[in-house]
Amino acid sequence: DVVHRIALIPGDGIGREVVPAAAEVLEAAARRFGFALRWEELDWGCERLLRTGAMLPADGLEALADLDAIFLGAVGDPRVPDHVSLWGLLIPIRRRFRQYVNLRPARLLPGVPSPLAAVPAGGIDMVIVRENNEGEYSEIGGRLYPGTEEEMAVQEAVFTRRGVDRVLRYAFALAAARRGRLTSATKSNGIVHTMPFWDERVAAVARDFPQVAVEQYHIDILAAHFVQRPERFDVVVASNLFGDILSDLSAAVTGSIGLAPSANLNPEREHPSMFEPVHGSAPDIAGRGIANPMAQILSGAMMLRHLGQARAADAVEAAVAQVLAEGGPRTPDLGGNAGTAEVARAVASAL
Amino acid sequence: DVVHRIALIPGDGIGREVVPAAAEVLEAAARRFGFALRWEELDWGCERLLRTGAMLPADGLEALADLDAIFLGAVGDPRVPDHVSLWGLLIPIRRRFRQYVNLRPARLLPGVPSPLAAVPAGGIDMVIVRENNEGEYSEIGGRLYPGTEEEMAVQEAVFTRRGVDRVLRYAFALAAARRGRLTSATKSNGIVHTMPFWDERVAAVARDFPQVAVEQYHIDILAAHFVQRPERFDVVVASNLFGDILSDLSAAVTGSIGLAPSANLNPEREHPSMFEPVHGSAPDIAGRGIANPMAQILSGAMMLRHLGQARAADAVEAAVAQVLAEGGPRTPDLGGNAGTAEVARAVASAL
Ligand SMILES: CC(C)[C@H](C(=O)O)[C@@H](O)C(=O)O
Ligand SMILES: CC(C)[C@H](C(=O)O)[C@@H](O)C(=O)O
Repeated sequence: DVVHRIALIPGDGIGREVVPAAAEVLEAAARRFGFALRWEELDWGCERLLRTGAMLPADGLEALADLDAIFLGAVGDPRVPDHVSLWGLLIPIRRRFRQYVNLRPARLLPGVPSPLAAVPAGGIDMVIVRENNEGEYSEIGGRLYPGTEEEMAVQEAVFTRRGVDRVLRYAFALAAARRGRLTSATKSNGIVHTMPFWDERVAAVARDFPQVAVEQYHIDILAAHFVQRPERFDVVVASNLFGDILSDLSAAVTGSIGLAPSANLNPEREHPSMFEPVHGSAPDIAGRGIANPMAQILSGAMMLRHLGQARAADAVEAAVAQVLAEGGPRTPDLGGNAGTAEVARAVASAL
Repeated sequence: DVVHRIALIPGDGIGREVVPAAAEVLEAAARRFGFALRWEELDWGCERLLRTGAMLPADGLEALADLDAIFLGAVGDPRVPDHVSLWGLLIPIRRRFRQYVNLRPARLLPGVPSPLAAVPAGGIDMVIVRENNEGEYSEIGGRLYPGTEEEMAVQEAVFTRRGVDRVLRYAFALAAARRGRLTSATKSNGIVHTMPFWDERVAAVARDFPQVAVEQYHIDILAAHFVQRPERFDVVVASNLFGDILSDLSAAVTGSIGLAPSANLNPEREHPSMFEPVHGSAPDIAGRGIANPMAQILSGAMMLRHLGQARAADAVEAAVAQVLAEGGPRTPDLGGNAGTAEVARAVASAL
């Protein structure tokens, strides 16, 4: 059998509940489709930080380099400032392994109630292609006159041609393979230096993809359109921050953040890619066994596809869709009262 | 009679349609409540730029300094890059006159269909308090190695304690006068320097408002909550960029961007404040007489209130609400087929 070696990082909060549940579903898929998953479980996260002073061992990232993929739950704990925990683990992995594409599909699945009144079932099917390595997320900046009345904080957003072009190329290629339409999120009317540059690069890369029709929207009005007419979007490419906002929004209009998967891809496959749900560690519901494991399971399906197990990936996605469509057990975020384990078991048996 | 001197800047696109229509409604209110509006009409905008090379005269801003208020339509024209037109007129006015609060109320009015399935009529009533002078909108930044493969663009966001505290104080005071609850939009888990600073200042200013309960959300999940449970928000304070995004989103969930007013306030009244709709110049529908004038009319009501004409402001808002509730004429954005002038006439006669 083929063996895929996967880092398993449950992380914090509900990550510790949904990751084991999802891993069992993926195991079931592996058995059915004749491959093996070898999990390297890692206790990285805020608990470890509080216990040992470090979220991960000093050589931790290097230990991931040889694995085939990383399966992450969530990072974040109320006892640790978020910018410490996220910049200690999640963001370094995205950067170190050049996972410059964050792919976040959002589909309205049959049986899932959308908060929107007028969207036809199955009527939303989009993918956010989020730039994942640079842009508004940067360590560059700091404070002047800290602790005084004159205090100020500055934050630098950095967009490089190489960094922008590579994610745009990925998005254009994806749009060409789907419906030939690409939406670019911008704010070139308000943000003077970086967003006009983004628009320029969109125009430049578009010349290599004449089969793709491009449109651009300012982020403010695009957010409004996601509510008013989400059905008209297909592939949406956005900077790190805008992609972050749009992907939560696309998850909301398709029913639940608890269903939204994501893939942090290194498209060249020089480094492992990472698969994690869009949701966070949700300390408010952690420990109660009621978190929806479907986002984690669907992230696992994206991982299987990336590993070349497309049939297994399809089967996992179909199993989730079937449980939802047939009114199977569902967690409170979807209006049900089932627990994490029960939902995962239902998906595994639908497999 | 009291006379209020107002700069009337229709600007571009549908601004030229909705501003005259709204001005007539405000005239009707002035007649009924016994005060006078003296309009100083200014042809500033992109047409003027294309004709004369400048959006406004060199000493234009100074000419506004002595007026009581500025009533603006919209700025933006497809023939002019947006960052040129907006930074040539709108943003300089906001800055020059220290209009550091951008107040953007969003209410679901009876008779207006919300795109959300489950919101009770009248069930959304929030105000976005947007920082309007600094933050992510800055001229600071530029390019390195332009035109080469190594090209990069940087953009500096700048948050000062003075700039943050003053808008926070306004928001806390507003929250204290409303339901005693304030939501702060942040992204301190991803943005390292400025958003943790924002959170610190929220905590510091909160100590002076013990009667206000504060909560904070990251912008991504907050955007999702605006779709999933908008009824739970009251006063929301946000940085320049986050406030921009959230206000379009709050307008979308309350039915139409065509209904959303805004006030750019200099709370100290040392300088004129500016009143403009949240929507832009909408070149796609400009010239057809079908733009919804209600956002402009409601912006006018905010202006009347700022000028001390609270009864007139209430009456204008009630007239708009009445036309909507009674199924009066409505523009296409609300599913009707009336034109701009007809809607404005209906509001004026409801007065
Ligand atoms: C046109 C643009 C610069 C402006 C902004 O972002 O401030 C607009 O979107 C607004 O909300 O007033
Ligand atoms: C936790 C946070 C830093 C992260 C991000 O903004 O990237 C999260 O919101 C996400 O979307 O993966």
